[in-house]
Amino acid sequence: MSTTGKLPDLASDAVLKPSIPIPSDFQEVKGIDYSQDAAYNSSATHLIQSMSTMGFQASSLSQACSIINNMRSWRGKHRSELEDHESQKGEFDSEGFQKTTIFMGYTSNLISSGLRDTLRFLVQHKMVSAIVASAGGIEEDLIKVLAPTYMGEFSLPGKGLRDQGMNRIGNLLVPNDNYCKFEEWIVPILDKCLEEQQEAMSKLGSNGLDADSDAIWTPSKLIDRLGKEINDESSVLYWAHKNKIPIFCPALTDGSIGDMLFFHTFKSSPQQLRLDIVADIRKINCMSMEASQAGMIILGGGLIKHHICNACLMRNGADYAVYINTGQEFDGSDAGARPDEAVSWGKIKAEAKSVKVYADVSLVFPLIVAATFASERPAPVAE
Amino acid sequence: MSTTGKLPDLASDAVLKPSIPIPSDFQEVKGIDYSQDAAYNSSATHLIQSMSTMGFQASSLSQACSIINNMRSWRGKHRSELEDHESQKGEFDSEGFQKTTIFMGYTSNLISSGLRDTLRFLVQHKMVSAIVASAGGIEEDLIKVLAPTYMGEFSLPGKGLRDQGMNRIGNLLVPNDNYCKFEEWIVPILDKCLEEQQEAMSKLGSNGLDADSDAIWTPSKLIDRLGKEINDESSVLYWAHKNKIPIFCPALTDGSIGDMLFFHTFKSSPQQLRLDIVADIRKINCMSMEASQAGMIILGGGLIKHHICNACLMRNGADYAVYINTGQEFDGSDAGARPDEAVSWGKIKAEAKSVKVYADVSLVFPLIVAATFASERPAPVAE
Amino acid sequence: MSTTGKLPDLASDAVLKPSIPIPSDFQEVKGIDYSQDAAYNSSATHLIQSMSTMGFQASSLSQACSIINNMRSWRGKHRSELEDHESQKGEFDSEGFQKTTIFMGYTSNLISSGLRDTLRFLVQHKMVSAIVASAGGIEEDLIKVLAPTYMGEFSLPGKGLRDQGMNRIGNLLVPNDNYCKFEEWIVPILDKCLEEQQEAMSKLGSNGLDADSDAIWTPSKLIDRLGKEINDESSVLYWAHKNKIPIFCPALTDGSIGDMLFFHTFKSSPQQLRLDIVADIRKINCMSMEASQAGMIILGGGLIKHHICNACLMRNGADYAVYINTGQEFDGSDAGARPDEAVSWGKIKAEAKSVKVYADVSLVFPLIVAATFASERPAPVAE
Amino acid sequence: MSTTGKLPDLASDAVLKPSIPIPSDFQEVKGIDYSQDAAYNSSATHLIQSMSTMGFQASSLSQACSIINNMRSWRGKHRSELEDHESQKGEFDSEGFQKTTIFMGYTSNLISSGLRDTLRFLVQHKMVSAIVASAGGIEEDLIKVLAPTYMGEFSLPGKGLRDQGMNRIGNLLVPNDNYCKFEEWIVPILDKCLEEQQEAMSKLGSNGLDADSDAIWTPSKLIDRLGKEINDESSVLYWAHKNKIPIFCPALTDGSIGDMLFFHTFKSSPQQLRLDIVADIRKINCMSMEASQAGMIILGGGLIKHHICNACLMRNGADYAVYINTGQEFDGSDAGARPDEAVSWGKIKAEAKSVKVYADVSLVFPLIVAATFASERPAPVAE
Repeated sequence: MSTTGKLPDLASDAVLKPSIPIPSDFQEVKGIDYSQDAAYNSSATHLIQSMSTMGFQASSLSQACSIINNMRSWRGKHRSELEDHESQKGEFDSEGFQKTTIFMGYTSNLISSGLRDTLRFLVQHKMVSAIVASAGGIEEDLIKVLAPTYMGEFSLPGKGLRDQGMNRIGNLLVPNDNYCKFEEWIVPILDKCLEEQQEAMSKLGSNGLDADSDAIWTPSKLIDRLGKEINDESSVLYWAHKNKIPIFCPALTDGSIGDMLFFHTFKSSPQQLRLDIVADIRKINCMSMEASQAGMIILGGGLIKHHICNACLMRNGADYAVYINTGQEFDGSDAGARPDEAVSWGKIKAEAKSVKVYADVSLVFPLIVAATFASERPAPVAE
Repeated sequence: MSTTGKLPDLASDAVLKPSIPIPSDFQEVKGIDYSQDAAYNSSATHLIQSMSTMGFQASSLSQACSIINNMRSWRGKHRSELEDHESQKGEFDSEGFQKTTIFMGYTSNLISSGLRDTLRFLVQHKMVSAIVASAGGIEEDLIKVLAPTYMGEFSLPGKGLRDQGMNRIGNLLVPNDNYCKFEEWIVPILDKCLEEQQEAMSKLGSNGLDADSDAIWTPSKLIDRLGKEINDESSVLYWAHKNKIPIFCPALTDGSIGDMLFFHTFKSSPQQLRLDIVADIRKINCMSMEASQAGMIILGGGLIKHHICNACLMRNGADYAVYINTGQEFDGSDAGARPDEAVSWGKIKAEAKSVKVYADVSLVFPLIVAATFASERPAPVAE
Repeated sequence: MSTTGKLPDLASDAVLKPSIPIPSDFQEVKGIDYSQDAAYNSSATHLIQSMSTMGFQASSLSQACSIINNMRSWRGKHRSELEDHESQKGEFDSEGFQKTTIFMGYTSNLISSGLRDTLRFLVQHKMVSAIVASAGGIEEDLIKVLAPTYMGEFSLPGKGLRDQGMNRIGNLLVPNDNYCKFEEWIVPILDKCLEEQQEAMSKLGSNGLDADSDAIWTPSKLIDRLGKEINDESSVLYWAHKNKIPIFCPALTDGSIGDMLFFHTFKSSPQQLRLDIVADIRKINCMSMEASQAGMIILGGGLIKHHICNACLMRNGADYAVYINTGQEFDGSDAGARPDEAVSWGKIKAEAKSVKVYADVSLVFPLIVAATFASERPAPVAE
Repeated sequence: MSTTGKLPDLASDAVLKPSIPIPSDFQEVKGIDYSQDAAYNSSATHLIQSMSTMGFQASSLSQACSIINNMRSWRGKHRSELEDHESQKGEFDSEGFQKTTIFMGYTSNLISSGLRDTLRFLVQHKMVSAIVASAGGIEEDLIKVLAPTYMGEFSLPGKGLRDQGMNRIGNLLVPNDNYCKFEEWIVPILDKCLEEQQEAMSKLGSNGLDADSDAIWTPSKLIDRLGKEINDESSVLYWAHKNKIPIFCPALTDGSIGDMLFFHTFKSSPQQLRLDIVADIRKINCMSMEASQAGMIILGGGLIKHHICNACLMRNGADYAVYINTGQEFDGSDAGARPDEAVSWGKIKAEAKSVKVYADVSLVFPLIVAATFASERPAPVAE
């Protein structure tokens, strides 16, 4: 191209193409206003508010807080306005108004991390209605009552750790002795559970598997018992038991509890403790159908994400959804799917408020909780 | 800094620091040799071989193929050399030599994708010993016999799809009618399963839950029955049933089968079909303990990854491990953990050969299989 | 919820919602047909064809090959049909028909990896029209002529490597001696470049910076000289020089060449070699405007991705675009942006064929090239 | 396996392997203490402190704040203790003590986002010593003075946006009119720059390219001029000019400024404005060598990350390093490399404090700044 030529229209038309007038509802991108004192050592709520117009994940984080606040503050009819069969369904606030049934899911690693204290806070204060966890999310809560988990590093070589009996979870370390302590603690409980199963069976006989049988254990029923037995205020399971918040874990055998149940089959033979998963799918699905409004707070991916979404299909979709995870959609995994994929399935309502925050949960959930559930100290829970 | 000064030693010493002599076992990075005819429209094995010294994930992919070939070709003692109680344990080749027990895991989306044909090929030809799948990995195999899944796009808006009854899985679409067909197909089978349960219960009475009871269904037992009933050569479950390859799915209720089991509880009331997960954890753990050598091929993350690793802990570690997934370790998830984390737990032996390929499975598994299991047409399977 | 109740319509209506009739243009998901001999140790083209209906990234990979084949095969008018000033613009095939101007970009690490041989193959056979690389993508090509790069591991600790003078690039190692050799090789060339600059300056005087000045060096001009000097058939730069394929690298100082130019400023003082980046932006933008059709093959993210896209804005958009990288869009980075973001800017035409493959380039580019550019051995290049 | 057998030692030994006694320096994982009032609507510093023992990225985030506070508070010798030639090198606090030279890098998108206000805050209060940005990180700062950027969505289709002249950056929108306004603003400045270049050339003649020439423009010199011209307190460039904080951008032509420079070549012909990148590499490398201690805060990947690291090689490594980005190491990219890779190159000292936070910068940098640089309102900057 000649160096003396005129700038071709091709380039200038493309680069300097005019835009339409700015629609009146457009919102300007802006950040923190450092002329305000609140910008210094900001509080959680101030930070979250400032992030709402920052763009990228900052605005998604802010939106997550807004959705959580919406699900917390929604109120429907008063119990007195409802027909009899309606007035026993779903959640009600202390004054008798319908409120949102909140399903919270988390993966095992979050209980291993220091987030356990935050998750326990939510359960202790009845801020969520039901929990779905993976197996490690159950047992690590119990084990932490028996012995601590420690800080480590992502790069510690596995061979040396195995030689020392140190199990690595990301940048955390769990001494294997903790699992030995867990075995000592849980075996007598499993013995007792088996005994109860056998007692019920001998009473019920061939009706032992009926719907209203109390012979058969389920994951949620065993978890509730474990919460009762651990009897420690640091525990999520303890508070879930106390506050009657069911914890679902369909694959409860997939972890240390599974190891212990496996070991127990040798001890109990020819009897065997059984865990039925059909009753639990019925239980969570019914909770979803009975909810006045349903909210989802899903921390991590995999089973716990799908399980809550699937339960919400039974009501033709959740009304609020917050996903926080590091999964990506490009591999077609459910773990990485955006909320909009769940809309196509009827798991989230088309008109629901939903957001996915692309982040390690540990990085953002402390801030989210500080700006929402823990924006102020909760009133003591009425017993 | 003065522009006329001499180059400071600080910089030149840092930049031009000498290196140690190259150790004799160092391997040069090199790529494809385009002087060879084999470089053009390369075969899978040629490509994989060329990738071994390319670095990054190319060399990891090549290493994955090498590990798979190792686990496939390993042979131990001949049956005749073993004591009686040993000679019934683990896997043997057609000539009676011990071979590797291969645990393969996959997530639901892979069955939804065209990889189903590849996974079926492996099961049909008895190339794997046991499977762990998530719930969708069971039902989508069956549903595909009833009606097809279609190509879509990641960006199709959820609301429009829901209105049309089209469910999105990444860039795939499943018409909701497929699930209606599935319901029609499975309900009579569940009826029959319940009938069998109740027959056994009436025979066994209060011993109905004993270890050797055939009253209680388990996920793997139900999956086997479904494989028998579907009776179609395109199905993974069909071949798993035919070839006696167990498929484990502890959270079998977490998907459409769960929906159907839930619906069935209303139909069957007061009776209720039960699925026990304790027997299955015993079954997979025993397979692991009995294996002469254990290999893991884990496609995706979440439950299926942890479940195979946990089973291999029972034998103090797998001997071979290939992970393929898109998860990252920074969030401390098991899904994203490198094989070396499993070494710290005793789930993979310290001296095992292991690799993680960071990729969407659909992108690399066709090539991996073409260069390993399907590097040549398998001999017909002896019945 | 009563266990005896009828299944609520709420759930069955949501789960069993009917779908619309399947549109006739819907394409079924299917995978490899193992009844065909071609499924065993498949060729690249067979594999890619089979992957087209697999979904997820498998189908994206197949689409990438299809787009590359489209950009390669497109032909426009014959030179004889064009007006004089048109007949010198853009690319023509050996028979005089217009063809696509292909811009290929790659990041430094790909030249460090074994992909260098594949990139060189494309340049050697004039299969691309222009290259954009980051600084390391220039110097590592030259350095590899002087001494090899070696295989390493991602987990090798940095301190030990620094003590040994071994520089790590992912799972590769570059001995620091290689950079010492590079310094020895390049300093005399920089001396010569400076000499030429000063000669031209003394001839041109105060017009030394004019547009048609040959006093001022640019990154692309220096890279061309380095390609000439290295004079080795293993080198990308050598073939780019020989085949007159410009290589753009606006930030050429950002790497070892920058270190050498920095050192050279001390040696050359008070004279100083200069590298102007304005002439190069003009050069690449003009190539884009003159192209009959423009195709982009962008391997990796960052500068090289944006630079090619920005050049294509000058023509109101590329006609074909293939991105391969591991970046994600959620952080608002250009690196992770999907092709559709570039459509909004006019950098890719709305009607263009485009795809992003979410993968490490090393994992997929060998297969892509084997199924496209190297599906058959190229005819010898006419000199 | 017989159901009546004893639990094999193989399993119990593996599962119940004892661990070594806990080393006394092990730190327990713990989270937020909700018995404290500070846990409610927490301040940034409280939150960051609580996150330090949470594990995963929470503890990495806390560590990033700790490193930043370390680099900010470090003090070396007093000017009066130094020899003459030392006393002009590096950074000093207002009392004359050596302090850390802080190199901050950011990608273009961060300036497009609301983080621009935070970045400007740091520059306005002289909290960083030098900046490396990509081209968009320069021009978007200027353009925002002329017209705003707006909130959008990641999923807005590109074709419709192009038709409206709306350019998408992740979930932000920039009206194309903003670039038209930018052109109007910058052309007269480029005219003036060219005029100054030509004046200097006519004065210097054939010495026009010498090291101490003021004929040749460089990216950093042009950026400084633009900062002076924009003359607006909302601008990063304005404060950088005012506070003499150099901004480096070796590929300044890779964006809208490049478009304008390209257009300008047609207007200015046969004269041409030139931008030399050799002088700038000398300038940044000298800053690194002269620094008493060097700290890096690198927000994003690509060029800006490598450029700062490479400059720190000149001093045999930075003393502090904080990376925040979403890149992964598995593809061998520099963008995704962990700090430990830079240790192998001598770009970070082996004994330096370093951390990588795996996150979108917008998600964590507001909190980081609120807990470090903005933990209290800064004293007015002495002019």
